[in-house]
Amino acid sequence: MTLPETAREWHLIARPTGMPQSSDFELVEVPVRAPGEGEVVVRNLFLSVDPYMRGRMNDIKSYVPPFALGEPMDGGAVGEVVASTVDTHAVGDLVLHMSGWREVAVGPAKAFSVLPATGLPPSYHLGVLGMPGLTAYAGLFEVAGFQDGETVFVSGAAGAVGSLVGQLVKARGGRVVGSAGSAEKVRRLTEELGFDAAFDYKAGPVAEQLAAAAPDGIDVYFDNVGGEHLEAAIGALHQHGRIAVCGMIGAYNATEPPAAPRNLTQVVGKRLRLQGFIVSDHGHLRQQFREEVGAMLADGRVRAQETVVDGIESVVEAFVGLLSGDNTGKMVVRLA
Amino acid sequence: MTLPETAREWHLIARPTGMPQSSDFELVEVPVRAPGEGEVVVRNLFLSVDPYMRGRMNDIKSYVPPFALGEPMDGGAVGEVVASTVDTHAVGDLVLHMSGWREVAVGPAKAFSVLPATGLPPSYHLGVLGMPGLTAYAGLFEVAGFQDGETVFVSGAAGAVGSLVGQLVKARGGRVVGSAGSAEKVRRLTEELGFDAAFDYKAGPVAEQLAAAAPDGIDVYFDNVGGEHLEAAIGALHQHGRIAVCGMIGAYNATEPPAAPRNLTQVVGKRLRLQGFIVSDHGHLRQQFREEVGAMLADGRVRAQETVVDGIESVVEAFVGLLSGDNTGKMVVRLA
Repeated sequence: MTLPETAREWHLIARPTGMPQSSDFELVEVPVRAPGEGEVVVRNLFLSVDPYMRGRMNDIKSYVPPFALGEPMDGGAVGEVVASTVDTHAVGDLVLHMSGWREVAVGPAKAFSVLPATGLPPSYHLGVLGMPGLTAYAGLFEVAGFQDGETVFVSGAAGAVGSLVGQLVKARGGRVVGSAGSAEKVRRLTEELGFDAAFDYKAGPVAEQLAAAAPDGIDVYFDNVGGEHLEAAIGALHQHGRIAVCGMIGAYNATEPPAAPRNLTQVVGKRLRLQGFIVSDHGHLRQQFREEVGAMLADGRVRAQETVVDGIESVVEAFVGLLSGDNTGKMVVRLA
Repeated sequence: MTLPETAREWHLIARPTGMPQSSDFELVEVPVRAPGEGEVVVRNLFLSVDPYMRGRMNDIKSYVPPFALGEPMDGGAVGEVVASTVDTHAVGDLVLHMSGWREVAVGPAKAFSVLPATGLPPSYHLGVLGMPGLTAYAGLFEVAGFQDGETVFVSGAAGAVGSLVGQLVKARGGRVVGSAGSAEKVRRLTEELGFDAAFDYKAGPVAEQLAAAAPDGIDVYFDNVGGEHLEAAIGALHQHGRIAVCGMIGAYNATEPPAAPRNLTQVVGKRLRLQGFIVSDHGHLRQQFREEVGAMLADGRVRAQETVVDGIESVVEAFVGLLSGDNTGKMVVRLA
């Protein structure tokens, strides 16, 4: 296969204030270099956009370093090997890697994981079988300590992480309530994904809607949103309840400090535990997660939902859409 | 010994709004009844006033039921048996029990624990060797998971719980920073109790003073206060830091929801754990706690501080003083 002479990649050229703008990014055409010793060349098929990327666009110290201005963005991607200098990676292999936001990736073979043939769509490795899936699995079982039969509330329930959290709860005999940002998403949660109840958080106060959906209270809150959702969950949690804080997307674009839960004093009387977590601390669960969720996908207990956007030109639009809640399930950009 | 014909006890006659007022309570003289089968009569020597009592004065569901209007208050007390109908309790025995806020207690012997002869002042069983002491011990070791050598920040550090937290940290080779509400309390923390650093939270922003006292950050925050202290601690905590939430005294008399930490989103990136707890869940540690802290008191590694107020008439004043921070160490009322 002949390598293309050039390929396009997205650079961050300004740090966003509030919601990112297209002017914060630039699509740049660059030469494709030949692979050096131990390297491969990969043509990307699917690019991932994820909420955590917003934090990396700020110039602040965090658990991952910020994106550099004038440099290519990166992120999860699935591609096909088109040139290789190593035995472990053959031309035609599907690989999972972190050089996303670009059409072609060149780098050391060990940074590209060859994917097993699962018969499942390759994009699933960016979603239900990938980082967001492991986030749901680790957060629910290891961080929140979910026990079979408990009642769970998950916010951002129509997203890549939340939609798997809810299905895992159902697969383990629990009860799950989800919140999402539109009537259509709410319909999908209850009609397609098996949620016991769901509500549109834009349609009324979260605390009231949660109380109606879970009148007997909740044991676990899986937080993707923060703010008003967290306050409502603290009010609804039983004694010894647990909160797994995966993200607070409601705050990512805030230019003012977000509203904090005014009922936080209840953590004492209820003995609540609130635990923030990052999926990279839970890699020891990956094999178990892939086997268990892979089997659930195969027999239909878990359904993967995706929102697919086409073309490298659309990556920024997909990312902004993700932060605005345009997606149902995993948001991916298809290049091939 | 002849039983007194009457004795005084405090009744709650109105639910306080904000800081309790003397008009919310009434000192009532009641007949002392003779002990029935299996009962003892106890003359109280020391009464405890504790922050948790404020919550029980509100008519809301919590981990303990509210005090009833027109009925005697209760709380921890140490007294001397003056009449007994059982072999297990002899006249003259010192007992620890929960029928405080009164001069004389009559009830089933099993509600009165006979205290071992320790040679230590009886009031210590209400403080450093009692409920507040176990709270410090359980919160630091079991809830926060303190490891030898870590840096701990404790708020309300001059109080009954906080002053022991700091001394336990020092006994285990850690570094401890405390906050308190006056220059005199701060002086005692560093000069008498061995704190590495301390500051007066009324003298400036907590976050700035904490950063100056712990420039390399903290591993554990033991929260007795909430509000601005909690926000400052979240900012100072290292990755995988832990917060044991013992109380939020800053909010107990609030008539508006208290300020919540505006930086709560940091729990994700730092993987922080925030855990509320109640000492009654940690009774399994009591024996170990008494032995360990008893030995530390005996050899001087731990010093008990008390603020002693005299007379049954002074109980409400002592309680309001406690909520206002008038005490250093354990606040007790001496009756004998």
